[in-house]
Amino acid sequence: MAKPKKQPRPKAETPKGFRDYFGAEVSQRAAMLGQIAGVYHRYGFDALESSAVETVEALGKFLPDVDRPNEGVFAWQEADETGNGDWLALRYDLTAPLARVYAQHRNDLPTPYRRYAMGPVWRNEKPGPGRFRQFYQCDADTVGAPSVAADAEICAMLADCLEEVGIPRGDYIVRVNNRKVLNGVLEATGLVDAAQRDAVLRTIDKFDKVGESGVRELLGKGRLDASGAYIDGVGLSDEQAAPVLAFLTSKGDDTAATLANLRAAIGGSEIGGKGVDELEEIADLLAAQGYGPDRIVIDPSVVRGLGYYTGPVFEAELTFEILDEKGRKRQFGSVAGGGRYDDLVKRFTGQEVPATGVSIGVDRLLAALHAKGRIQSHDTGPVVVTVMDRERMADYQQMVGELRAAGIRAEVYLGNPKNFGNQLKYADKRNSPVAVIEGGDEKAKGVVQIKDLILGAEIAENATLEEWKERPSQFEVPRAQLVEKVREILGGQG
Amino acid sequence: MAKPKKQPRPKAETPKGFRDYFGAEVSQRAAMLGQIAGVYHRYGFDALESSAVETVEALGKFLPDVDRPNEGVFAWQEADETGNGDWLALRYDLTAPLARVYAQHRNDLPTPYRRYAMGPVWRNEKPGPGRFRQFYQCDADTVGAPSVAADAEICAMLADCLEEVGIPRGDYIVRVNNRKVLNGVLEATGLVDAAQRDAVLRTIDKFDKVGESGVRELLGKGRLDASGAYIDGVGLSDEQAAPVLAFLTSKGDDTAATLANLRAAIGGSEIGGKGVDELEEIADLLAAQGYGPDRIVIDPSVVRGLGYYTGPVFEAELTFEILDEKGRKRQFGSVAGGGRYDDLVKRFTGQEVPATGVSIGVDRLLAALHAKGRIQSHDTGPVVVTVMDRERMADYQQMVGELRAAGIRAEVYLGNPKNFGNQLKYADKRNSPVAVIEGGDEKAKGVVQIKDLILGAEIAENATLEEWKERPSQFEVPRAQLVEKVREILGGQG
Repeated sequence: MAKPKKQPRPKAETPKGFRDYFGAEVSQRAAMLGQIAGVYHRYGFDALESSAVETVEALGKFLPDVDRPNEGVFAWQEADETGNGDWLALRYDLTAPLARVYAQHRNDLPTPYRRYAMGPVWRNEKPGPGRFRQFYQCDADTVGAPSVAADAEICAMLADCLEEVGIPRGDYIVRVNNRKVLNGVLEATGLVDAAQRDAVLRTIDKFDKVGESGVRELLGKGRLDASGAYIDGVGLSDEQAAPVLAFLTSKGDDTAATLANLRAAIGGSEIGGKGVDELEEIADLLAAQGYGPDRIVIDPSVVRGLGYYTGPVFEAELTFEILDEKGRKRQFGSVAGGGRYDDLVKRFTGQEVPATGVSIGVDRLLAALHAKGRIQSHDTGPVVVTVMDRERMADYQQMVGELRAAGIRAEVYLGNPKNFGNQLKYADKRNSPVAVIEGGDEKAKGVVQIKDLILGAEIAENATLEEWKERPSQFEVPRAQLVEKVREILGGQG
Repeated sequence: MAKPKKQPRPKAETPKGFRDYFGAEVSQRAAMLGQIAGVYHRYGFDALESSAVETVEALGKFLPDVDRPNEGVFAWQEADETGNGDWLALRYDLTAPLARVYAQHRNDLPTPYRRYAMGPVWRNEKPGPGRFRQFYQCDADTVGAPSVAADAEICAMLADCLEEVGIPRGDYIVRVNNRKVLNGVLEATGLVDAAQRDAVLRTIDKFDKVGESGVRELLGKGRLDASGAYIDGVGLSDEQAAPVLAFLTSKGDDTAATLANLRAAIGGSEIGGKGVDELEEIADLLAAQGYGPDRIVIDPSVVRGLGYYTGPVFEAELTFEILDEKGRKRQFGSVAGGGRYDDLVKRFTGQEVPATGVSIGVDRLLAALHAKGRIQSHDTGPVVVTVMDRERMADYQQMVGELRAAGIRAEVYLGNPKNFGNQLKYADKRNSPVAVIEGGDEKAKGVVQIKDLILGAEIAENATLEEWKERPSQFEVPRAQLVEKVREILGGQG
């Protein structure tokens, strides 16, 4: 008989660009998604969970007109009888599936349709440090409401979400701009050439990086960038560039001043006037509900996404400073964004349907809360009941049963109990607050030993002998007081 | 200029075998997963969320030795520089990724490693009615604990989970069996031929369907099945078949009787004896924690999965009756299962690592709660504040702001407000409990109209004029009492 060929062992690795999430990473994200879902729900939004897999046709953008669909999505071809089934792909965001769902179910869905969705999306991109090919999105959108009251509602809801997850007022700001105002500004420049208009749009996108003087140079003759290279400008005259610069710098001391500046910037443009009216209406609606400019502010310097959206655009920023990886102070920056887009379902039905929505970056928010020390990077581990006598496993199980019934996270050590040191090392690795010990002597005396592991670690690091005597990290209590004493220790750490 | 070719509109459809989940379907599942996660966590299990995408190599079973990997998974080949990257696939369960994660991170993970995982998995199978190619799993496993105390713990946790999600004691039973006992029984039959042993295993799997007499016939000469076809038997003598039948029917009036029957069935088999000892130990450990045979019972008639597992096997069944689609009473049946398997990470590391775990079918559990009327199929919709005067949108937004601040789900109607009937139709479609109306007259009088939509619907269906007079479904209240009155109505429905 031929010797069976030995198969090489498979590598135990995630595919490149993917990662696993452990313990607190998972539960903290789940808790945050739950908090945000609670706010979305309170605002009347309904949950939607679409399938992770879509036809490439429905996703759009990525058409199977070549041998393999374009990069950007993970796609494969179904094997049907002919060997040539549909191309399927993993969703790359939650908006494209919303368009498909709304087109498919529009007769059964209410209009307007307010929906929220949260879950992973996948991008077939080159992975890099901190850039993963699977990540979470957490969106809310209103489909079928043309009124900017829908946009104002989204902004208010966004502010509520940030406070709900633990970003206090003053630590965030939601900025609102409007694509229509920009269109009015473009009219005011007098530019008619489409290529030149596009060049102006691209230049505006750089405002965040290069500031007012940089944009002024780039709209005109050009500028030397930081590396010393010369970047050609759009070639506008000072007069042509003026409305654009007025627009970008129109933020005044209060909303009224900003709006007046904007009206000046758009000249007599009709679409621009409509845009400013919309911003005014949004500000009024929000003010009536108590959302002042300390929380949501009209700010024309917000340009991210202006090219993509068709009306109001919003962005939430955290305003506190954190230390970056090189120890430099910097603003934390953007954690959510959105706006109005009106071509959502047109691809499917031919009808234009107005829509507006927001996407909250939960992983960024979690990172912010960590950076501010507002959430711990470790879960508190379980109380570990050690096994001194493996014949008395039932006794130990009874202890954890009592602890759990009192709502306390607890477990019996289930590894090999022979080496007691290993049991304590295990408890340490689990970040356990308390270990419980009941050997034969304790059993006979009707007591258990309780070891306060967190206090123990502190003493080992800091305490003098004096303090140690006063507050021992291990003590004996009657067996009947197990739950009570453990709860006292845990309470002290709460 | 050539007329641009008109692209056909894409179909707005999920791929075959996939579906979308709306509203309560999503939030009820999320709530149930949260409840189960709470129990798992209390037992000391840590969350794990592995990537949805794995290399085909790591998933195993499905090797890329042909042009396309075997059916069963959704797989595709990465396009690297050479055009021949790794084959990737969507996970088909949560156990294969656990094996990969444990092998990859074993030096950083505690031993034993208790982890839970919940999320969608994907199967590339022919879809059928009620059979989807994406569905949820919700697993807990203990890796690295050889002791059956780990199995007992899983059983207790399973019972706790069922009660936590709303299945009361008495409506479920967790049955426990052991593969080692079956191995002992096979020894007792005296069969040595592997093919004959496999045939006996396959026959045992039919016990659920054909019962004792059916298995007796199938172990012997064979039997006529329901369709009239003759099924050949395994060909055992009565004497050879006796231990198998004794095993399957060994459930006694209490645990002691069952264990005694099992000891008789295995004859002198060593492995069988070890299996019975394990069952006894599990029963003792559970009894010590108060889990009696009314909740977790040793039951050798549980044969599902016996071929796959290597030690204890468990299955949770709901014992109440429901009406099936044809109106016939039937037992609801299995909602969770699991057991011990010891080859988890061997593929990766060569080392055998003991593991035991359970998978809870959340969609089955949700269906059971629906069937029993314990959860509603609809979410309660939001309170809808109607728009009588579109110039006063800020007033209406203020109302929903007050309602939300009081924790009440509420929204302003954001569709076209011209047709008031449409606003009420919308509220109806949203399953709204209350509509709020404030026209010019009400505004002038300082009041709002409150419409109790659920009472209104009841009256429309059932009430006589007399009752209607006594309890009007629409009434006027001072504007300042809006929140209080809405809360009263909602409270009455709680």
